[in-house]
Amino acid sequence: MNEAGPRPFVWPVRVYFHDTDAGGIVFHGNYLHFMEAARTEFLQSLGYNVAELQRAEDGVLFVVYALEMRYHKPARLHDSLQITVAVRHAGRARLIFEQLIKRGEETLVSAQVSIATVHPRTLKPIPVPERLRAQVQPQ
Amino acid sequence: MNEAGPRPFVWPVRVYFHDTDAGGIVFHGNYLHFMEAARTEFLQSLGYNVAELQRAEDGVLFVVYALEMRYHKPARLHDSLQITVAVRHAGRARLIFEQLIKRGEETLVSAQVSIATVHPRTLKPIPVPERLRAQVQPQ
Amino acid sequence: MNEAGPRPFVWPVRVYFHDTDAGGIVFHGNYLHFMEAARTEFLQSLGYNVAELQRAEDGVLFVVYALEMRYHKPARLHDSLQITVAVRHAGRARLIFEQLIKRGEETLVSAQVSIATVHPRTLKPIPVPERLRAQVQPQ
Amino acid sequence: MNEAGPRPFVWPVRVYFHDTDAGGIVFHGNYLHFMEAARTEFLQSLGYNVAELQRAEDGVLFVVYALEMRYHKPARLHDSLQITVAVRHAGRARLIFEQLIKRGEETLVSAQVSIATVHPRTLKPIPVPERLRAQVQPQ
Repeated sequence: MNEAGPRPFVWPVRVYFHDTDAGGIVFHGNYLHFMEAARTEFLQSLGYNVAELQRAEDGVLFVVYALEMRYHKPARLHDSLQITVAVRHAGRARLIFEQLIKRGEETLVSAQVSIATVHPRTLKPIPVPERLRAQVQPQ
Repeated sequence: MNEAGPRPFVWPVRVYFHDTDAGGIVFHGNYLHFMEAARTEFLQSLGYNVAELQRAEDGVLFVVYALEMRYHKPARLHDSLQITVAVRHAGRARLIFEQLIKRGEETLVSAQVSIATVHPRTLKPIPVPERLRAQVQPQ
Repeated sequence: MNEAGPRPFVWPVRVYFHDTDAGGIVFHGNYLHFMEAARTEFLQSLGYNVAELQRAEDGVLFVVYALEMRYHKPARLHDSLQITVAVRHAGRARLIFEQLIKRGEETLVSAQVSIATVHPRTLKPIPVPERLRAQVQPQ
Repeated sequence: MNEAGPRPFVWPVRVYFHDTDAGGIVFHGNYLHFMEAARTEFLQSLGYNVAELQRAEDGVLFVVYALEMRYHKPARLHDSLQITVAVRHAGRARLIFEQLIKRGEETLVSAQVSIATVHPRTLKPIPVPERLRAQVQPQ
């Protein structure tokens, strides 16, 4: 995360029963729901509606092609979490996100989520929309 | 369940961590995954592939329009469960299923799942395919 | 829903990709996540933290024992939904909730969720906490 | 994956509606369910019941602390998949698994899942059970 750069987008979530498992903590796969929600709201904040983009004739679907996660501490039932979103790289047909899952000052999970832009019907790679690419370009 | 009738279809499942919640038991919504799996395998056993049916030009999508569930006892991590499927009613544009979730002789959950047959693109009601309707007609 | 009574509690949610399925609509089981979130926030608004209640020596766990759902219209990706919570009956050891899932003026799903209060370790029925029962008593 | 080594454990799964999303493919987080199921069945095949291990006084909980995933091709509704499990490293208090998600000869997803062994109540690191460590030691 670029410490000196602009503040990342932050999306708050609460941990509910369906996010947890019998270990008493959030199931490791369910953090991906929190991160998906935060990326969707980040795109929405820039004016992009993922459903409209998917339906449009000249649309785009954002597909995860690589994922790196580090789980530092577990989140628990009813925790209030902050999910950050920052773009580390905006390429021709991919966006690489850095995301943190924080509980106050503690970082519980850190992740790098690599997204390809594909055609919604063919799933073939297509360019990142030019305006979006300019908007999310890291300084 | 028709006690005197033919044996219902049975599909076995194991309870994994992602099926459970911090209460130490299966999350009440996740039994719907077990029941969906069992209905899909029941249809497959009769020769119907739900993905092909959805893609086909003259296809059909099975959509739940009503649900009644009774949770008698909780299922727990690593339990081996048997999910039953029986058709109680096969109408013109709907199928009503009775399903049980059993752990050996114990019935943990009983459910009635009401399914409408709709067009995959328009989601408008369409008839249950004639051959399927004949196959699942309760005696 | 008591039309003349007090306004129900309302919790807003957005539909994300993980809530939907290949039918292009919200998976029928995932509405239970939205309703669980709304009930949790309703209890929180009255001063009850479900995680503390579960951990406490004299704690309580809220377990769904019956469910009735009617799916009127499907919710879709990126929809903004309002989830209502109203208590229809507050008994000695159970609470019966009426919940609606609305998209603006449209009611997409209506549900009755019956909850038993049980001991977090033994899962045996215990009374609804007296203060909570008084707070949620329908007029 | 050790090409020359012993055959990995393989667990078959079918893709159901609740595994997919509105993109028409399996949601990227849901492959973790398939991999969790396969690791659980792998451990079971060696004589370890994850629920008993978690409940036992001298028990152990297997917690994911790092994850690397590469999504090569999407899985779709009703696909029959094979999930492989191989242990790449068996350390003092961690196990590193290599897992593939295959559809026949095609590899759809490849993953490295790093697991810590922790105490079920305190979540503090504890040693991998000695017998298990010996059983899964890569040759």
